[in-house]
Amino acid sequence: MNEIKLFCPATIANVSCGFDVLGLCLDSTGDEMTIRKMPEKGVRISKIIGQDLPLEAEKNVAGVAVLALLKEVETTFGFEIEINKKIKPGSGIGSSAASAAGAVFGVNKLLGEPFSREKLVEFAMMGEELASGAPHADNVAPALLGGFTLVKGYEPFEVLKLHTPKEIFATVIHPQIEVKTADARSVIKQNIPLKKAIIQWGNLAGLVSALYTEDYGLLSRCLHDEIVEPMRSPLIPGFYKAKQAAKDAGALGSGISGSGPSIFALSKGEETAKKVAKAMAEVYKDFGVDYDIHVSKINTEGVKEL
Amino acid sequence: MNEIKLFCPATIANVSCGFDVLGLCLDSTGDEMTIRKMPEKGVRISKIIGQDLPLEAEKNVAGVAVLALLKEVETTFGFEIEINKKIKPGSGIGSSAASAAGAVFGVNKLLGEPFSREKLVEFAMMGEELASGAPHADNVAPALLGGFTLVKGYEPFEVLKLHTPKEIFATVIHPQIEVKTADARSVIKQNIPLKKAIIQWGNLAGLVSALYTEDYGLLSRCLHDEIVEPMRSPLIPGFYKAKQAAKDAGALGSGISGSGPSIFALSKGEETAKKVAKAMAEVYKDFGVDYDIHVSKINTEGVKEL
Repeated sequence: MNEIKLFCPATIANVSCGFDVLGLCLDSTGDEMTIRKMPEKGVRISKIIGQDLPLEAEKNVAGVAVLALLKEVETTFGFEIEINKKIKPGSGIGSSAASAAGAVFGVNKLLGEPFSREKLVEFAMMGEELASGAPHADNVAPALLGGFTLVKGYEPFEVLKLHTPKEIFATVIHPQIEVKTADARSVIKQNIPLKKAIIQWGNLAGLVSALYTEDYGLLSRCLHDEIVEPMRSPLIPGFYKAKQAAKDAGALGSGISGSGPSIFALSKGEETAKKVAKAMAEVYKDFGVDYDIHVSKINTEGVKEL
Repeated sequence: MNEIKLFCPATIANVSCGFDVLGLCLDSTGDEMTIRKMPEKGVRISKIIGQDLPLEAEKNVAGVAVLALLKEVETTFGFEIEINKKIKPGSGIGSSAASAAGAVFGVNKLLGEPFSREKLVEFAMMGEELASGAPHADNVAPALLGGFTLVKGYEPFEVLKLHTPKEIFATVIHPQIEVKTADARSVIKQNIPLKKAIIQWGNLAGLVSALYTEDYGLLSRCLHDEIVEPMRSPLIPGFYKAKQAAKDAGALGSGISGSGPSIFALSKGEETAKKVAKAMAEVYKDFGVDYDIHVSKINTEGVKEL
């Protein structure tokens, strides 16, 4: 195999009560990527369509992720990468993660799969480090493993795939509001009340149980974020209106996707997820704010060959 | 039915990463209780064997729990309770919870089961409020539901039973050290670093996943307490030695049972749990501290008729 074409999915990190640990993989939104073997060693980003992003491998998340992988394997050739960037950077649905995950997935395939998907997460994290200053896995894990994923911890690093109930659909609205990563970070308090932490981990434990037992009612009752949502929501005008609209339209719950400004909702069944999309869209129509909106089943596979 | 005899199990609360939310039910240790209908309405504690505890219903955890239940149902008769108290109060394995749970379970049976086990947890919590000043459910939930339980939250109150892997056995050692509840509480800091909270909820989410998938390796890697164990362990001399001894003997993990001083370990298989018991016992033998020790399968049923 000398060339591979890939779908590199968008992802939702945090998922309300799972700040920094939970993630899930979308199916209807993602980048496309083509990777080809080339005679020179190393990585070359030859083309990026749709966004103005750096082509130098060392400054590009996909390039950095592949360079991390190539440190751990001998090759006699290199890789040329073309990216059709459909996920907007800064939208909060794992744009950089999709590129990093797709690149290491494709290169691994072209090398005959020396690495597991879990190991690829560690390489892709190096791309995330370039994008955000810290190697975090809450988007690259679902992009590579698919479904709902848990970053169990970083010392030692461990990611795992949780069970995904069949009927869950996601709605994601991206209002065209800029939330600067620095702002999204600076609002996070470094100390939190133990009482709130207990509520949060009670909800997270309940949510994991709900995934395995496919208990949609319980899932809905657990989709709360006691800690980060109250800090970040002021950065997203209309957030609580959109959340209420989603709930009123039948969503199991909703929250901030990653660090925003995208807002996600989870629903049981595609029909409800579409109603939820309509209701959330109405909120931003009324606000006069442009938006993109997607309804997606959960992609239980992660990055896929096209 | 005019009389019922019960086994009221001891329980382990917190289970390392699940402070205030997780619990599990033991099978080899517990109180015995007999409850009889009596012509006068109300509750009478007629006898307590083994411990010097108040017989007045309003001052006894079992009495208070039953009185809470009787507020929600009409009866033409009352209940007389005899308790054979085998769990030592203050040992950290849910002594008061066993009495409260057994009493409401038995009364509910004699009334023809008007209440679910989940509802009984709420009545039993009233007994816990008498014992500790706050209505908490992390021991009464496993005592009534059996297996591993989760207190998902208090507002609104919700408890659920998680899946229990078949091969888990518990070892519990009770060194005869007094830990005052006031001390066990006063060492808990009311604010915690978000970083540690994230590690804790990553472990808890992993542990819940490990229960459902019966992944003993993952379970072992999740049995850590970043937050409360470091605060409370100084109150239990020998704690880290006993923990290390348990680990060396093959335990999946160990930690403080409830607020201590009992120390629990979980193992895969009864043989290992027995080896762990021997190793933990050696530690306190060397210290010259008396102890009780138990090896128990997980009781997936909770309070049982004898």
